[in-house]
Amino acid sequence: MIWVNGVITDNLPMTDRGLLYGDGVWETIGIRRGTPQWLEWHIERLQWGLQTLGIASPHDALLRQEIATACAGQGRAVLKWIVTRGSGQRGYNPHTAAEPTRILQVSPWSEYPADYAFTGIRLALCETRLAHQPRLAGFKHLNRLEQVLARSEFGSDYQEGLVRDYHGNVIEGTMSNVFIVNADGTVSTPELSQCGIAGIMRRYIAQTLEKMGVECHIHTLTLQNVEQAHAIFMTNSLIGLWPVREFSGKSYNIPPLLRELQAALHTLS
Amino acid sequence: MIWVNGVITDNLPMTDRGLLYGDGVWETIGIRRGTPQWLEWHIERLQWGLQTLGIASPHDALLRQEIATACAGQGRAVLKWIVTRGSGQRGYNPHTAAEPTRILQVSPWSEYPADYAFTGIRLALCETRLAHQPRLAGFKHLNRLEQVLARSEFGSDYQEGLVRDYHGNVIEGTMSNVFIVNADGTVSTPELSQCGIAGIMRRYIAQTLEKMGVECHIHTLTLQNVEQAHAIFMTNSLIGLWPVREFSGKSYNIPPLLRELQAALHTLS
Repeated sequence: MIWVNGVITDNLPMTDRGLLYGDGVWETIGIRRGTPQWLEWHIERLQWGLQTLGIASPHDALLRQEIATACAGQGRAVLKWIVTRGSGQRGYNPHTAAEPTRILQVSPWSEYPADYAFTGIRLALCETRLAHQPRLAGFKHLNRLEQVLARSEFGSDYQEGLVRDYHGNVIEGTMSNVFIVNADGTVSTPELSQCGIAGIMRRYIAQTLEKMGVECHIHTLTLQNVEQAHAIFMTNSLIGLWPVREFSGKSYNIPPLLRELQAALHTLS
Repeated sequence: MIWVNGVITDNLPMTDRGLLYGDGVWETIGIRRGTPQWLEWHIERLQWGLQTLGIASPHDALLRQEIATACAGQGRAVLKWIVTRGSGQRGYNPHTAAEPTRILQVSPWSEYPADYAFTGIRLALCETRLAHQPRLAGFKHLNRLEQVLARSEFGSDYQEGLVRDYHGNVIEGTMSNVFIVNADGTVSTPELSQCGIAGIMRRYIAQTLEKMGVECHIHTLTLQNVEQAHAIFMTNSLIGLWPVREFSGKSYNIPPLLRELQAALHTLS
């Protein structure tokens, strides 16, 4: 089911700048028992994107009401939420756009094999690199060709791919964030000021680690850091936490810490 | 008038990856006397983009036939031509997309004040920088947030804005390519291997200069190169050639060479 500006439809006006320029932002939200999870954080990131792009935010009450409508009667489902700058005159000038377009789409829950979370995944190393563009880093905008190119590099032998920037530093997965467990028991995840998406699950994991008394450091991560890690795991709002069992020809264990994090997530679902 | 896959409509399926990820390419083509100008070069660049993104090209005959249909009966008009990867399953994986979407839109000719071509324009210097991403440089894809941000920086006091990369080198205008005339009479325009769009008019101007026996060099261009130029001009398929009369607090003359180039363009229209 798809709503555009509150109306059920399958279509979008061809003149929408979301299509023409990728001029908008989006969120993918897990719905469990009819409730959108981490909604406040999703709203926060969406607003961050709108503000960065200079798109006037629709009223908060309207956004929340439409999300509630979309989630009503759903058990487990996926909510895709897009806000574009709307339709305007021809050309890049954003000031000609009349009003943002609000799009909500509810899809069936993505069922991944339980093995991915339990025995772990095989992680590919992508050749596609992320460009440094601090103006567009962190939030989730509609310019996602880098992710499409990176995702096209691997097939069903791998469940996710690791993506680096042009300096060779590790940034994220194609659709997830990456964490490593270091030999000293601390956890690291890449800083994302130049590129990458600051995932909602990344934030939750960092917060949970803090509550557990485990140090989580956000800093530059080299490929060597990842290869030499004690453990590697990938996160996003839908997959939760996938341990990596194989990367770059090497096998990785799944330490108790990862099971504890998964357990923390499980209590939410 | 808008055609999607040969059918007249105003709408696009919400699941199209052109909207979701900017997963597609486009061309803006000037129609004069019912004829799409520089059509072969536009097709060539579109195909370059499709191939780079791994999108299967629709049949050449089909593309040409649809363009002919869109142009039929038009005098001067603007043809916007988009080809996206089409609709697929949720997620970045491009291999789930069934078939590319072909979109053609005919709009009235963009009437700019004749002054812009005659007495020249005021050129702003944008703060928004272009990221280096060689995988996406040169062709015209649907990820255009950098251009939107750059264009948002100036109002009606300026007719175009000059955009640099993060090294400070000059790349292009927000919607045009830039050329400078050097003190020795040669012409320079930035190389675009890392970012920027290789415009059709840029190609035509370079070809015309060659025919005129004027050296045109494609190389790295610093801001100082532009500021100290004998003359500056901007080009695209719709505006043709706009001389710059003011940039960075300095006035620029319009040398005879620019009038000769405009005359060469005029013979085409």
